[in-house]
Amino acid sequence: MAETVQVGVVGCGYWGPNLIRNLNSLADCTLSAVCDADRARLEYLHGFYPQAAPFTGLAEMLADADLDAVAIATPVRLHHPMAMACLEAGKHTFIEKPMAASSEACRELVDLAARRGRVLMVGHTFLYSPPVRMIKEIIESGDLGEIRYIAARRLNLGLFQKDINVVWDLAPHDISIVSFIMNEMPCAVNCQGKANVTRDIEDVANMTLFFPGGGFATVQSSWLDPRKVREMTIVGTRRMIVYDDVEPLQKIKIYDQRVEVPPHYDTFAEFQYAYHYGDMHAPRILQEEPLKLECRHFVDCIRNGEQPLTDGRSGLALVRTLEAACESLRAGGGRVEITAAGPAGGRREHEG
Amino acid sequence: MAETVQVGVVGCGYWGPNLIRNLNSLADCTLSAVCDADRARLEYLHGFYPQAAPFTGLAEMLADADLDAVAIATPVRLHHPMAMACLEAGKHTFIEKPMAASSEACRELVDLAARRGRVLMVGHTFLYSPPVRMIKEIIESGDLGEIRYIAARRLNLGLFQKDINVVWDLAPHDISIVSFIMNEMPCAVNCQGKANVTRDIEDVANMTLFFPGGGFATVQSSWLDPRKVREMTIVGTRRMIVYDDVEPLQKIKIYDQRVEVPPHYDTFAEFQYAYHYGDMHAPRILQEEPLKLECRHFVDCIRNGEQPLTDGRSGLALVRTLEAACESLRAGGGRVEITAAGPAGGRREHEG
Amino acid sequence: MAETVQVGVVGCGYWGPNLIRNLNSLADCTLSAVCDADRARLEYLHGFYPQAAPFTGLAEMLADADLDAVAIATPVRLHHPMAMACLEAGKHTFIEKPMAASSEACRELVDLAARRGRVLMVGHTFLYSPPVRMIKEIIESGDLGEIRYIAARRLNLGLFQKDINVVWDLAPHDISIVSFIMNEMPCAVNCQGKANVTRDIEDVANMTLFFPGGGFATVQSSWLDPRKVREMTIVGTRRMIVYDDVEPLQKIKIYDQRVEVPPHYDTFAEFQYAYHYGDMHAPRILQEEPLKLECRHFVDCIRNGEQPLTDGRSGLALVRTLEAACESLRAGGGRVEITAAGPAGGRREHEG
Amino acid sequence: MAETVQVGVVGCGYWGPNLIRNLNSLADCTLSAVCDADRARLEYLHGFYPQAAPFTGLAEMLADADLDAVAIATPVRLHHPMAMACLEAGKHTFIEKPMAASSEACRELVDLAARRGRVLMVGHTFLYSPPVRMIKEIIESGDLGEIRYIAARRLNLGLFQKDINVVWDLAPHDISIVSFIMNEMPCAVNCQGKANVTRDIEDVANMTLFFPGGGFATVQSSWLDPRKVREMTIVGTRRMIVYDDVEPLQKIKIYDQRVEVPPHYDTFAEFQYAYHYGDMHAPRILQEEPLKLECRHFVDCIRNGEQPLTDGRSGLALVRTLEAACESLRAGGGRVEITAAGPAGGRREHEG
Repeated sequence: MAETVQVGVVGCGYWGPNLIRNLNSLADCTLSAVCDADRARLEYLHGFYPQAAPFTGLAEMLADADLDAVAIATPVRLHHPMAMACLEAGKHTFIEKPMAASSEACRELVDLAARRGRVLMVGHTFLYSPPVRMIKEIIESGDLGEIRYIAARRLNLGLFQKDINVVWDLAPHDISIVSFIMNEMPCAVNCQGKANVTRDIEDVANMTLFFPGGGFATVQSSWLDPRKVREMTIVGTRRMIVYDDVEPLQKIKIYDQRVEVPPHYDTFAEFQYAYHYGDMHAPRILQEEPLKLECRHFVDCIRNGEQPLTDGRSGLALVRTLEAACESLRAGGGRVEITAAGPAGGRREHEG
Repeated sequence: MAETVQVGVVGCGYWGPNLIRNLNSLADCTLSAVCDADRARLEYLHGFYPQAAPFTGLAEMLADADLDAVAIATPVRLHHPMAMACLEAGKHTFIEKPMAASSEACRELVDLAARRGRVLMVGHTFLYSPPVRMIKEIIESGDLGEIRYIAARRLNLGLFQKDINVVWDLAPHDISIVSFIMNEMPCAVNCQGKANVTRDIEDVANMTLFFPGGGFATVQSSWLDPRKVREMTIVGTRRMIVYDDVEPLQKIKIYDQRVEVPPHYDTFAEFQYAYHYGDMHAPRILQEEPLKLECRHFVDCIRNGEQPLTDGRSGLALVRTLEAACESLRAGGGRVEITAAGPAGGRREHEG
Repeated sequence: MAETVQVGVVGCGYWGPNLIRNLNSLADCTLSAVCDADRARLEYLHGFYPQAAPFTGLAEMLADADLDAVAIATPVRLHHPMAMACLEAGKHTFIEKPMAASSEACRELVDLAARRGRVLMVGHTFLYSPPVRMIKEIIESGDLGEIRYIAARRLNLGLFQKDINVVWDLAPHDISIVSFIMNEMPCAVNCQGKANVTRDIEDVANMTLFFPGGGFATVQSSWLDPRKVREMTIVGTRRMIVYDDVEPLQKIKIYDQRVEVPPHYDTFAEFQYAYHYGDMHAPRILQEEPLKLECRHFVDCIRNGEQPLTDGRSGLALVRTLEAACESLRAGGGRVEITAAGPAGGRREHEG
Repeated sequence: MAETVQVGVVGCGYWGPNLIRNLNSLADCTLSAVCDADRARLEYLHGFYPQAAPFTGLAEMLADADLDAVAIATPVRLHHPMAMACLEAGKHTFIEKPMAASSEACRELVDLAARRGRVLMVGHTFLYSPPVRMIKEIIESGDLGEIRYIAARRLNLGLFQKDINVVWDLAPHDISIVSFIMNEMPCAVNCQGKANVTRDIEDVANMTLFFPGGGFATVQSSWLDPRKVREMTIVGTRRMIVYDDVEPLQKIKIYDQRVEVPPHYDTFAEFQYAYHYGDMHAPRILQEEPLKLECRHFVDCIRNGEQPLTDGRSGLALVRTLEAACESLRAGGGRVEITAAGPAGGRREHEG
């Protein structure tokens, strides 16, 4: 490998420029190519990054033997064919979330990356964000006690997707965060929803996740709410956290208040729960862009031959959860088990 | 009937004193009796209201032929036997929500009240609250367009109930408000939850309601959240309302922002939704105590021989919804239909 | 003295009933008399407190030899003559803030109370409120470092006074809190304002206070703001507090963020301040009614022969500050020194 | 003049790059030169804008005959000599606020610009911001009634200036907005403050402004507050506005609540103010960058030979107010009149 990682980005639309900007800012990474089928869009980006060679076709870009890695930020249906081509060409591959349109497609990618010995990473960006990392640390320190449940909401007005529903668009963020905090992937899901604006594309959804260790979580998603909401409440036996990602500074609030069950009480007598309303604490959080930390991690994994935190198996496990959620959605919202199909199942993610 | 309505209140615990205070404040109503099995509690209340005769047993209180009506604020399991006794004694009867512990019990009460020609009213207090009334008016004016969905949350730390779960405790408020706004009772429900503190008593629940006219609503309930939340978002095709009952003054915010689907577009071309971020408006709301308006309505119905807005059939329909929700909760959260069993079914509530 | 303190309250209007309710709730205090020139008002209160003898004239009430103490909640112009009569009659005396309409009048009262050996207390209620007490403790612990300045705002829509301006009505709360925190009374004041609604009665005012130890504080008062604001920012060299009395639970927020001046730097080079954005902490605060704690303190001082925290000298010192502020207001807003006139000067308040 | 305006920017430090970015984005303006004494900084900017010729000295840049205009974003003490040089060279000149370090210097610039017939504009950016423009329109429509007073606060932690105090740094924004809304410049000022961190550089200040038409305004400024506050309350006789520039969307809230003085009342009887608590309305505001609109205006004035809204006389009038405020600050905070010294006095600003 050259001194710096040579990386190309395919997809210069809504999200691609953010990847381009961040990859370009890393010291040991060189943005050497950009690719988009839309020539006007490509030229626009080339104007800002003249050092990166422009391509309208992925095959041409992959033909460059000096290229070490590719980041894919195209519509979901293109994730699988493009990532297959990148891995076949021996490039380390980063794919935006969700990893692919089916778990079948994800599994092919995981297998191919393993056979070729290439890094395969999925863009579950929030696992790199400072507040989520801090929540994880607080929980691992034992300060929260055991987690009773997590309630997540991700609501806003638009941006509407045309090929995927709100579950595939917004819920991956919350499912990845909740699983990261719970330290395991969900084993069952219920999901109800409604398609208000576009036929068969649900724009509001209500999901419940069950975890092997007894964990319980709800995830609400909407493209139709008048307010922008990104909120998660984590209720522990000792403390509780409210994480509000819309807040500019105090994204995490830790509440010391709790309900304590007295250890002994006479079952014939009235018992009363001891309420404890305590302090609230908002810790200082580093103000770093999660996407930059994510790009940093991708380049580090390439250079050091390490497995990414959000590797292909993690992306696959999440897609399996989305598939199960949509199966529940289509079948009356009943419980759908998420089986660990084969050795690549998602049960062991996030353990390190 | 005497010039004023003579009313007795049974149950002087947590909620009863609020009924006592409000009934006592009405001009054409006389608080003539209070009843509680706890003699100390009874005497404490008698000190404040010396004009009301104190009783430790309901039968003794009902023996007073001058008593016109009784309000019941006891634990849920006592609602049915006490209300039966009151109606048998020919008293108009008010029962706190939920109406009874089963729809079977509710139906008996509805039938008995009909046979005896007595007013039977249930304490779904929020339907008398000025902000809910204003929301109803706004929707009936057509300002919101058609309702796409409603999302409700009612969360706090405690107060734990010992005989009913959080669905029976908190959700009745939201189900009654949502049904009032939708102008019909739900026809199906999904519900998932978890019992964290007390075995088999769920303290967090996530519910989805479906309505015959296509309406969709979610209701989240918790006794374990660090914050007190009473919030409802009503998303219409033209406008959206956020109703926050914790706000002291601006409980209702009407958002003019919306997503418009362009009427025509070329299916081969990209289409874009027209976003419209508009004004927000917080209308002035009368500052009146909902419970006082509710007590006022009970006395008016007695005096004028009218059917209460929240009559026995309404209370029955709500209990059927709670039963269906708990059936879903016990059976994996799948969809449970709420059938209109018999002539007393809940399908025609809130039509006037 | 009898077993319990026998107390009478004069003034049953806007504020008096709060004093009556709290004095009545204390175990070692008996509400034995209420007094108001308005017979209807008096009878209304007598209905709630039949044990208290009703009087339309103060002299008649004072004739009762068993009466130990009087609390005065009448218009400010009546404070001095009524308190003089009470003290002459040998009664311990509590006066609502501001103590009297002039420092001259205050001084007479202080002198008379001293000669008669009676407790004289002024109702600077906020000094008994749990959040103010907690702020005081935090500062005394050294956690804030030295106080750089305090900025206070007390704004709302109405309630208009007819005989005093907004400085005499709202600012006493902030001046008493700021002085309590600073541990000394101000030595100079600037004040500007405007009378918008009623001629010569300022309804908006902007005040700056200077303290002997170098302290600096601003106090803004208004009867014309659309929002209810009770806010105080206390900026220390190490930490900062924002105290928001309108918040229901988290009234105090302690910010760990600060600007540090590097101890040495090259004057020829650029120097940069080291910014430190840190944690925020909202401590648990006892939910007790300040007025109850204040009444409790009055009764304790009577029983134990102690000097109240907010004694007559304290009330006098505050009135001197108000006089100086109004002198500044009338004379172009320039600096007016607040001299410690005579032995009763306010310089030694709040030292214990 | 060439087809597009050729503009150079001097000062590439903290603020300059914002001017560079916005001027560069305008269709009929060409960023043809950038200038900074710091060669490293200059090269950094040149990397982003290779089309702009880099200069380390202003004289060299001004030697370019094709250059039409210069924007100055250097420390305040350099504003006067640099702007004099630009105008002498016949360039239209834009100066960041405050215009210069003294009104004397401002007046020289106004005179020179007039003699040379060149546009002279000062960067009072907020007068180009959509919320301030909307407030102005609302007031001109009469909806607020007459303005009773304005209260402004601009607080944050740092950024500390080394050569000017907080009055010169933060207050210009508020004074320019308040004067724009009042439609006249202030005629007198009181100001008190304190230097906490750096000797003789006040970092907290409390100002009161008086206007010829009876207007009253307060302006509070601080570099030491734990929160970022940019808030202005405008109290009218009919409605009130709270303008919060930190809010992302609802920057303006219009309150319909007001206090009405009854037209007639018996002076011997009690009179009561009629309180009217009404609606709150948050209008939609265009999301445009004020600095872009300001740059747009500068280029338009050059092309059309028009007088800028924030012309040199306006900048001079503001500096006179700052001088008077600091005179008050040094002299005990008393009232200092702001005289219209000479024909260039600030009394007629903002009348169009």
